[in-house]
Amino acid sequence: MAKEGVDMTEETEYMIDRHAGKEAVNVESPSNAKEMRAVVLAGFGGLNKLRVTKKAMPEPQDGEVKIRVKACGLNFLDLMVRQGNIDNPPKTPLVPGFECCGIVESVAENTQGFEIGDRVMAFMNYNAWAEVVCTPVDFVYKMPDDMTFTEAAAFSLNFVAAYMMLFEVASLQEGMSVLVHSAGGAVGQAVAQLCSTVPNVTVFGIASCFKHTSIKDSVTHLFDRNADYIQEVKKISPDGVDIVLDCLCGENTGKSLSLLKPLGTYILYGASNMVTGETKSFFSFAKSWWQVEKVNPIKLYEENKVIAGFSLLNLLFKQGGCNLVKSAMDKLLSLYEQKKIRPVVDSLWALEEVKEAMQRIHDRGNIGKLILDVEKSPTPLMANDSTETSEAGEEEEEPEGDNDSKERMPFIH
Amino acid sequence: MAKEGVDMTEETEYMIDRHAGKEAVNVESPSNAKEMRAVVLAGFGGLNKLRVTKKAMPEPQDGEVKIRVKACGLNFLDLMVRQGNIDNPPKTPLVPGFECCGIVESVAENTQGFEIGDRVMAFMNYNAWAEVVCTPVDFVYKMPDDMTFTEAAAFSLNFVAAYMMLFEVASLQEGMSVLVHSAGGAVGQAVAQLCSTVPNVTVFGIASCFKHTSIKDSVTHLFDRNADYIQEVKKISPDGVDIVLDCLCGENTGKSLSLLKPLGTYILYGASNMVTGETKSFFSFAKSWWQVEKVNPIKLYEENKVIAGFSLLNLLFKQGGCNLVKSAMDKLLSLYEQKKIRPVVDSLWALEEVKEAMQRIHDRGNIGKLILDVEKSPTPLMANDSTETSEAGEEEEEPEGDNDSKERMPFIH
Repeated sequence: MAKEGVDMTEETEYMIDRHAGKEAVNVESPSNAKEMRAVVLAGFGGLNKLRVTKKAMPEPQDGEVKIRVKACGLNFLDLMVRQGNIDNPPKTPLVPGFECCGIVESVAENTQGFEIGDRVMAFMNYNAWAEVVCTPVDFVYKMPDDMTFTEAAAFSLNFVAAYMMLFEVASLQEGMSVLVHSAGGAVGQAVAQLCSTVPNVTVFGIASCFKHTSIKDSVTHLFDRNADYIQEVKKISPDGVDIVLDCLCGENTGKSLSLLKPLGTYILYGASNMVTGETKSFFSFAKSWWQVEKVNPIKLYEENKVIAGFSLLNLLFKQGGCNLVKSAMDKLLSLYEQKKIRPVVDSLWALEEVKEAMQRIHDRGNIGKLILDVEKSPTPLMANDSTETSEAGEEEEEPEGDNDSKERMPFIH
Repeated sequence: MAKEGVDMTEETEYMIDRHAGKEAVNVESPSNAKEMRAVVLAGFGGLNKLRVTKKAMPEPQDGEVKIRVKACGLNFLDLMVRQGNIDNPPKTPLVPGFECCGIVESVAENTQGFEIGDRVMAFMNYNAWAEVVCTPVDFVYKMPDDMTFTEAAAFSLNFVAAYMMLFEVASLQEGMSVLVHSAGGAVGQAVAQLCSTVPNVTVFGIASCFKHTSIKDSVTHLFDRNADYIQEVKKISPDGVDIVLDCLCGENTGKSLSLLKPLGTYILYGASNMVTGETKSFFSFAKSWWQVEKVNPIKLYEENKVIAGFSLLNLLFKQGGCNLVKSAMDKLLSLYEQKKIRPVVDSLWALEEVKEAMQRIHDRGNIGKLILDVEKSPTPLMANDSTETSEAGEEEEEPEGDNDSKERMPFIH
């Protein structure tokens, strides 16, 4: 945690309320409990704004299911939420998290299609990082029988985003080329797998050097983020590429546009360059807005180029796109059952370890998805601290674990 | 011609060189002629910069065919060229025109796929408005047997542009909605026809009121350009539309973006709002560039929107896109042969009438395509001048006409 700021002094080890949290799991019977554990963001700011506390048990409303959560996905966007570095941030305190999976524990009236005991994954408009969630069935999908909870928590957001960008915003077809920034991230890995379902697609990946060994087989060509990757790509493909997927924003926008072939599509699906330090002022979002290079439509006309933005969560929760997403999910689950795609999991973390997990994604240390495993206990502190934990990962015993495979289990410091 | 400026004083009737031009046709044998008639733009500016003059007969180079031209298409872009109101305008004098059709008269060495006598249509990088053109076969397509030359001259540019925008830049699918500005223009009419080849597509058309009677059957809903069409469309389709096609640019860009559904696509394929008067200063293009509303990629991200530009001519002649265009043309010719599409022709004009034709398109008087009919003689002056010539159109005798159907034959003043 060497990179963290001074406001981390008090809480470098465990979360304040972890003992309370463990009691909730161990002492009370889940089905009768009036409270549950959840990660709470007390206010926008640094890692010290995060707590695990008890919250009142939610009950499902008409059209909703109540889910006993097994695992949650952690995304870069959660960091931006923590900093308040998003448009129209909600009020704090709040429970973060946009996706989870688990078992249906009860079904409210006027709720179609689900039964108690169903294994499901769900998108949430916040509130996912908790032992129990309630959500309308529009955002809930049944898990395939052979999908583990770890996989399910790593599946929904990244694969749906990758799929919709490649096949609905752009139109990926045989013989095309795709450049993906952050090739080692969870979306990047999903993009690479989906590209391999189409014949003869060339994938150019950009990633930090230390990830290259782990991900080199997932893409056709891999470049260092710090190298002049524009020139490198042009050496291989002088005409440029058909699709660019960018979650960084900033200077990459102009560079990426210049790499597009005629009729090529640049898709911005995040703005992680907006996050530079651990904390950020409340004016960051507005500042970033103005710093981003604007695009002149006449330039697009002259160059025959397409620029798109994609935000799965806005599509789901602000723009009524749940049917579009359902359709994409159906196709993805079919690909999963054909064993053509499988989420890449970086590491599993207890709720109490959410700060360490966030630091890892902030440092771009991850390869694939970070998962919050609700039933996992915090890992004991290790002597040799390292932010590149995936390099040093090893299996450890999991006292309350389910039967999911745990691909990476990093040392926690 | 009431709207034309003072620089029109000398040439309100015929072009200076029309008698020379007629001699070339009537006296000399075409195959032995060393000269041919062509429209020449002497310099950028008003209508008075256009002449019909004799030019040296071109001869095909390796990989080219020589085409005896029967008819040429006139596009709004030709007005912008005349004014020099494009990026990097070429040197004058030049022969304008980007598309024509005719009969292959000779074939150079190393030229595959065409024979003398083939009926063809061709894209040209200028130089189309002439009795004879030479062009690489990459830009030449064989005409279906039952397509007339008038139809062919109205077909290539507008249908290929409409097709590629609807099906390759956007992905028009069953049940979608399309808004087209300039619904009465040649691209607008092509868009409407192509939309009708997909089940259950709603087409919103914007056009000047006086065109409504003529085109109302081609679209689902028709609105007046001067009305608050945004509100009208939203009344019918509160969620907005899937695709907007805009050749106007300017204030329509922001309005159109606001009308898009999530994942919807706005395509700019022209900037005719840049042309306001008959002449324009040389700085107009740069001025327009800066006046156009720029788009922030983060806005696209938040709203899940796509903005694209499409210039068929840049794709063909600057960006090596002839194979993409060939593929679109193949599909279009198949639709034509199935009688699912048919170009709408506004009016036919002799080369000597190019100024009147340009004025008509400048005034947005046309419904469908304006054609320069190379074998047509200038129509006699009529006493009652009218710019809305299509309202007063009637058939007239055509001394040198081929067998093409001449849908509209306006009085010329």
